[in-house]
Amino acid sequence: MRIALDAMGGDNAPYEIVWGGVLAAARTEDSVILVGDEAAIRKALRHRHPKIRPTPDVEALLREGRLSIVHTDESVAMEDAPAAAVRRKKNCSINVCMRLVKEGKADAAVSAGNSGAMAASALFILGRIKGVARPAIATVLPSSCADRPLLLLDAGANTDCHHEWLREFAVMGDIYSRLVLGRERPEVGLMSIGTEDCKGNELTKHAFPLLRDYTPGILFKGNVEGHDVFAGETDVIVCDGFVGNVILKTSESAAHAMGGWLKRIILGNLFYKLAAVPLLPALRKLRHQMDPEIYGGAPLLGVPGAVIITHGSSTYRAIFYACAAGSRAAAHNVSREIEARIGELPEVPLDEDLVAHQPASAAEPVAPGPEKR
Amino acid sequence: MRIALDAMGGDNAPYEIVWGGVLAAARTEDSVILVGDEAAIRKALRHRHPKIRPTPDVEALLREGRLSIVHTDESVAMEDAPAAAVRRKKNCSINVCMRLVKEGKADAAVSAGNSGAMAASALFILGRIKGVARPAIATVLPSSCADRPLLLLDAGANTDCHHEWLREFAVMGDIYSRLVLGRERPEVGLMSIGTEDCKGNELTKHAFPLLRDYTPGILFKGNVEGHDVFAGETDVIVCDGFVGNVILKTSESAAHAMGGWLKRIILGNLFYKLAAVPLLPALRKLRHQMDPEIYGGAPLLGVPGAVIITHGSSTYRAIFYACAAGSRAAAHNVSREIEARIGELPEVPLDEDLVAHQPASAAEPVAPGPEKR
Repeated sequence: MRIALDAMGGDNAPYEIVWGGVLAAARTEDSVILVGDEAAIRKALRHRHPKIRPTPDVEALLREGRLSIVHTDESVAMEDAPAAAVRRKKNCSINVCMRLVKEGKADAAVSAGNSGAMAASALFILGRIKGVARPAIATVLPSSCADRPLLLLDAGANTDCHHEWLREFAVMGDIYSRLVLGRERPEVGLMSIGTEDCKGNELTKHAFPLLRDYTPGILFKGNVEGHDVFAGETDVIVCDGFVGNVILKTSESAAHAMGGWLKRIILGNLFYKLAAVPLLPALRKLRHQMDPEIYGGAPLLGVPGAVIITHGSSTYRAIFYACAAGSRAAAHNVSREIEARIGELPEVPLDEDLVAHQPASAAEPVAPGPEKR
Repeated sequence: MRIALDAMGGDNAPYEIVWGGVLAAARTEDSVILVGDEAAIRKALRHRHPKIRPTPDVEALLREGRLSIVHTDESVAMEDAPAAAVRRKKNCSINVCMRLVKEGKADAAVSAGNSGAMAASALFILGRIKGVARPAIATVLPSSCADRPLLLLDAGANTDCHHEWLREFAVMGDIYSRLVLGRERPEVGLMSIGTEDCKGNELTKHAFPLLRDYTPGILFKGNVEGHDVFAGETDVIVCDGFVGNVILKTSESAAHAMGGWLKRIILGNLFYKLAAVPLLPALRKLRHQMDPEIYGGAPLLGVPGAVIITHGSSTYRAIFYACAAGSRAAAHNVSREIEARIGELPEVPLDEDLVAHQPASAAEPVAPGPEKR
């Protein structure tokens, strides 16, 4: 597989990105196309990465075409308004990556840059898969069960969602979980505020019967709640992009706060400080288990092509795993599978009929009061 | 202050609840009215609590009227449909607590029972404060800054919200944070998916200008995101009840998962197990810092009276702190302050005018696509 890698995107660009690409080209069967300012890329390549040992033979990779450079001198900054920037800067590195995929010169696009710009660029250049209303950003989260990471979507592409979109998210998530994350029969949950069928807001109350009765091919386990995010008992959770983004960032915040508290308690006391030394390998192991970098970034599902968005703070490791995820998504043809499954979805009933399908007690408000104005 | 305590609500009722009430009556200036099945309450009182030392003189408290019992033999179960249950069981313990407040025989009501039933009962019996559209459940969360807990509302009473309600949540949260949590000048944030003014969904984009320009008396710091939940730099965060509930439960899930991972890594290795022994006090201290019990439960704001809802798994400690929070809320007359401040709020402009107030780039979609159907 050929990976178009945006060398200019992310806080650590181009150095970490470039070396992530080198590692992917050296250690896997894939070839990597570094897209960005050629001078900056060549400069980064001249300084070997201290953590990558042995250093791959960059000259040989370039000679054999396993690694190549496509030059462009435009790029999108983190603070640019995403949609406007990719429209204005026609040759920004993200757009060039997408065009390589569009023209069949690359099989997957990977970027650690502005995720809004990435989504906008994919839509402008690749368009949408036939039948998909809105592409979604899916994120992989660690769980209490080490070999069962959670795929959460949408993680921020669509802030206000129609319930039909949630059905598409469920199908796309099911496919990615099976083909790329290797779950044989993913269990799909609908994010709500309680596991009972009747719990939820207007969106989830409409999506619930749709997922239960009108989405063949998924294993729908019903409503899930915040407690289920890290429980390791669900493979795919669907929600609107606002809620997904809040879940993602709140989890990071909670983990960070806990780590900080533990550190402060231990460092605040000489005895604890000494006692903690033998445990350092265990704490490092914990950090590794929680490390989102190894899960290969967030796929943008619903566009015709394998598009992987990684965290802005990505290091070479995150880029390496993201390239691997892009390669798998392309090799298993996730997009074609999405098109086929979305095309087979049954007609959605009218909203009124859908409400009739709702669990009996759904109509009863939890806290009665004046109508929503 | 006189606290009406629902002795029948919660997983550990009546024993832990009753003893939490005893402790509050013995250690504070408040008197406590235990509401529930008298035989069960008296039985619980006969078995002294092993963790409460010295055991308070229950007989003396009862004689002096610092502790009293109001009998009722109905109660609401966790699995009951909340609104229907409080309507059907007129004399359930929650309803009796509310009536004591309504009739001026108690100053605050505290329950660890079904929170939906609690909210419904408060609405049926106490009604709403004049001018408040919908009461909200506020939750106190620990933060990285030990003496700066976060008040998050709504945490689940209103799943679909109008943007005007969020303005009321902001005012009510500001008041509770000042009067009960002791923050002099609470910073109020609007939960969104990025800190930039233009980020958010339809609800937050309408609420933003309302909070910035039409809510005198609050210190509005703009949009906050999931990363800010535990950062300790915000005092009050407002959001709809769906998002608030997801934040609350996801945080609990993340903390639980991290604790579990650490435990498994340490217990899986004899050397680590031995090395961890001297650190046990530090780990206990961490657990204490994260312990939600000490923050005094979740107030239901917007009803005329001090109503505190605590976690279903509350122990005597949680009940003790909840009684203290109820007492403070009543003593500072949170409800009267809410009525005054809500009454002074300026007229809300029409939706169209509000949109004109939005930050310039708010109209630009992050990922353009077909309109929401």
